[in-house]
Amino acid sequence: MEASQNPSARKKRTRRRAGRVRKAVAAPAYITRKIPVHDLLAPESLEQIEQAADDILEKIGIDFRGGDTDLIEMWRRAGAEIAGERVRFPKGLVREVLKTAPRQFTQHARNRAKSVEIGGDNVVFAPAYGSPFVMDLDKGRRYGTIEDFENFVKLAYASPWIHHSGGTVCEPTDLPVNKRHLDMVYAHLKYSDMAFLGSITEESRAEDSISMARIVFGEEFTDNNCVIMGNVNVNSPLVWDASATKPIRAYARANQGTVIVPFILGGAMAPITTAGAIAQSHAETMVGCAISQLERPGAPVVYGNFMSSMSLKTGSPTFGTPEPALGSLVIGQLARRLGLPLRCSGAFTTSKLPDAQSMMESVTSMQASINCGANFVLHAAGFLDGLLSMSYEKFVMDADYCGSLHTYLAGIEVNENTLAASAFDEVGPGEHFLGCAHTLANYETAYWESSISDINNWEQWSDNGSIDTASRANAHWKQTLREYTAPDLDEAIDEELQEFVSKTKASMKDAWH
Amino acid sequence: MEASQNPSARKKRTRRRAGRVRKAVAAPAYITRKIPVHDLLAPESLEQIEQAADDILEKIGIDFRGGDTDLIEMWRRAGAEIAGERVRFPKGLVREVLKTAPRQFTQHARNRAKSVEIGGDNVVFAPAYGSPFVMDLDKGRRYGTIEDFENFVKLAYASPWIHHSGGTVCEPTDLPVNKRHLDMVYAHLKYSDMAFLGSITEESRAEDSISMARIVFGEEFTDNNCVIMGNVNVNSPLVWDASATKPIRAYARANQGTVIVPFILGGAMAPITTAGAIAQSHAETMVGCAISQLERPGAPVVYGNFMSSMSLKTGSPTFGTPEPALGSLVIGQLARRLGLPLRCSGAFTTSKLPDAQSMMESVTSMQASINCGANFVLHAAGFLDGLLSMSYEKFVMDADYCGSLHTYLAGIEVNENTLAASAFDEVGPGEHFLGCAHTLANYETAYWESSISDINNWEQWSDNGSIDTASRANAHWKQTLREYTAPDLDEAIDEELQEFVSKTKASMKDAWH
Repeated sequence: MEASQNPSARKKRTRRRAGRVRKAVAAPAYITRKIPVHDLLAPESLEQIEQAADDILEKIGIDFRGGDTDLIEMWRRAGAEIAGERVRFPKGLVREVLKTAPRQFTQHARNRAKSVEIGGDNVVFAPAYGSPFVMDLDKGRRYGTIEDFENFVKLAYASPWIHHSGGTVCEPTDLPVNKRHLDMVYAHLKYSDMAFLGSITEESRAEDSISMARIVFGEEFTDNNCVIMGNVNVNSPLVWDASATKPIRAYARANQGTVIVPFILGGAMAPITTAGAIAQSHAETMVGCAISQLERPGAPVVYGNFMSSMSLKTGSPTFGTPEPALGSLVIGQLARRLGLPLRCSGAFTTSKLPDAQSMMESVTSMQASINCGANFVLHAAGFLDGLLSMSYEKFVMDADYCGSLHTYLAGIEVNENTLAASAFDEVGPGEHFLGCAHTLANYETAYWESSISDINNWEQWSDNGSIDTASRANAHWKQTLREYTAPDLDEAIDEELQEFVSKTKASMKDAWH
Repeated sequence: MEASQNPSARKKRTRRRAGRVRKAVAAPAYITRKIPVHDLLAPESLEQIEQAADDILEKIGIDFRGGDTDLIEMWRRAGAEIAGERVRFPKGLVREVLKTAPRQFTQHARNRAKSVEIGGDNVVFAPAYGSPFVMDLDKGRRYGTIEDFENFVKLAYASPWIHHSGGTVCEPTDLPVNKRHLDMVYAHLKYSDMAFLGSITEESRAEDSISMARIVFGEEFTDNNCVIMGNVNVNSPLVWDASATKPIRAYARANQGTVIVPFILGGAMAPITTAGAIAQSHAETMVGCAISQLERPGAPVVYGNFMSSMSLKTGSPTFGTPEPALGSLVIGQLARRLGLPLRCSGAFTTSKLPDAQSMMESVTSMQASINCGANFVLHAAGFLDGLLSMSYEKFVMDADYCGSLHTYLAGIEVNENTLAASAFDEVGPGEHFLGCAHTLANYETAYWESSISDINNWEQWSDNGSIDTASRANAHWKQTLREYTAPDLDEAIDEELQEFVSKTKASMKDAWH
């Protein structure tokens, strides 16, 4: 049901949806992949990993810390063995609980043309999430502000290749830590019309986020449809803290989506061998997904994964390396065997600049995400600096790479036209195809072309000032922000959102930690 | 048989092989992949492409231009229909001829520990090939010289991740065009001990290259083993020129290897639709491979592929784009159905600098090569500038990426140790794995670590001077060249090689075009 058909009783509204089409016709709301996934392991090996995960859950168990006693009680009723905070899961229990989780669902955008399908053969790209710092070539690295936050929301909105507005696109550190979630959710709703993620840092903040979504989508529609999601991390290894489980339950209670993600640096928060790290990740994620089903069977939930390797010299995390890429391929197989939508790694890098290393690592990581069958690619654009910084230039480069992946995921069509027999009839040996009828007929749909890459020859490139990729990206984001115009937002809704934000802020003292 | 057991009668020699092990123990002569290939198309679609290729061969045919009348006569005897230079191939003829080609073969290196297996599950990385220009951060872009050529041979030799010395690593434009092949082959033999490619620009130059290989490997050994290969391009579309077919035949006659490669810019030398371009490429390559078998059944031959897209604005070639990546996946399937070793795309890019674009495109291209099952990856390191320049810095970055692919291609081991049950017994929920027994036992073999990427945190990186990747690569190649020491080469062989070069040069006037 359209939110526009479901007005709040509190205020009379005119909910005109934006009629203006900003994005090019070619830009889709999301991708439906036409190429097969790349399966890495044979079924026997996958079964070994599943067995190892089951053993962890049965013999070691998971600690539920921080006092979410209701949840521990739910696990007891479901059949788990409880010993204080430690919960152990008899074989098959977690899988049984997961059976109510949907294989695929729609996350609705306030512009319904941009609603995204999560699961199945669908792929959704969302910006990077969670950096305290931002950087650009002009001002360097500094703490993120709400202005930066709004800028990244605008850049994602303006990109034809980003499908989702994401969540904490950077930390707006100039706002109180207990209030900034209100400004972030407002920015997603005001400056974009795409689907987005709400706060998960505390139960009340999750609830505030959902309340704001209800203002836009209507109460009934929200209760029956996914209109907001929260991305929640496990405290690996094997700890689910109340600060995470209560937000999961808040989203599930409202029938909204959660993305369940262990944050694993192999050798630190998990075994140093990849198979063991995957087994642990699988155990943790299954339990996290099951929490949503215990709270509200059928609530949308996404099986997430975040693995990294580490430097053996310093112990610091490394990103875009081969081990997590391989891990993603296996995680994809495991998620499909469970029948859950999959979130996987994005454009990860430890590089401190938008330079060669940054794209070497990010493309490696994104290729893994694409090949493993990820449905929701959080962190698809923007990260630098070991995920600590959101870079304006890197965002532009990554988004452009996401564009090329639209073509990649479309695969190769084999049919009479594409096999081009008529072209060979027309063009003989030694001649060229540039002007032939088949070329002219297929010209407009041929070949991905980047907006950032320079494909000129040396002389043209030199004449144009010998500009490097980062500098081209710098010009690109500035132009995009200059040309940005906000999507329509019904004035009455906007007022109600602002009222909610003011009222909620007024009920709290500022907190900065 | 070892070349050292097969001395020439002309000169008494002491053929001591280098006892020194320069490369780290971990550096293998080549990779044997443990991960599956990524198949893109269903068998029905592959059959459609094969059918289209067969139709091209039967109905359009191939022009054999330039006067290789012996070859046309061979095709007549094999059952092809001849009409002047045009040869048409009845269904199944080319496949029949190809039946004698080996599925896998060894290319011997003069250091036998570095001989490479071409075909099967094996992957061999070789430097980029054929750039007229070279560039580095200090001196910019200029025409390549024999000094540059030798430098790239040395850099490949010194890299633990490059398995093969390649061929024309850059054009030594300071040497006469009709003589430089002698200096190039000499450089490969003098400054490296890995397998390499000889000249293919003319029949006599191919023969000179093979003669020099015979000096090193011995006549009998060379007649029975592959010790040199030539990389030969089709004149797409559908023309095999005598300047290409005669070198193919020269290599095959000597029982040496050829790599058969169409150079296809889609929309120009082939249809603009990828399926049609693949069909044409398949037809051309099958015929090229068959030439070697007509000349000498059983001669080693590699099925090659080189596809590119083009800019729809300017008609200039683009590299590292999604269409050729998809094309590679299909080409891999076709090569496996034929049972021939496969050469595929390398680290391609149109970027003029070793910047973000360069690695974005190169990694995309290399991933395709890895996923499609390429056995011989020419152009694995060095290209910039739409393949016109060989970059010192890019070489270092690409070679480092090849290193990471060693880890990627090793896949994930799933066994009792890697599943790490003992680690979970030792480390409980909420604790870390850094010092646990399982971590310590597996520490040394864990995690790829780049030599070029900076994985420090922001503060350490800033303290170290905020250096970008290209500058680190610049320091790296300079240090490598400073520390380079040549592999041993028996003095008598060296003299004989130099004698051959002098004598052959003396028989010709310098030609510069």
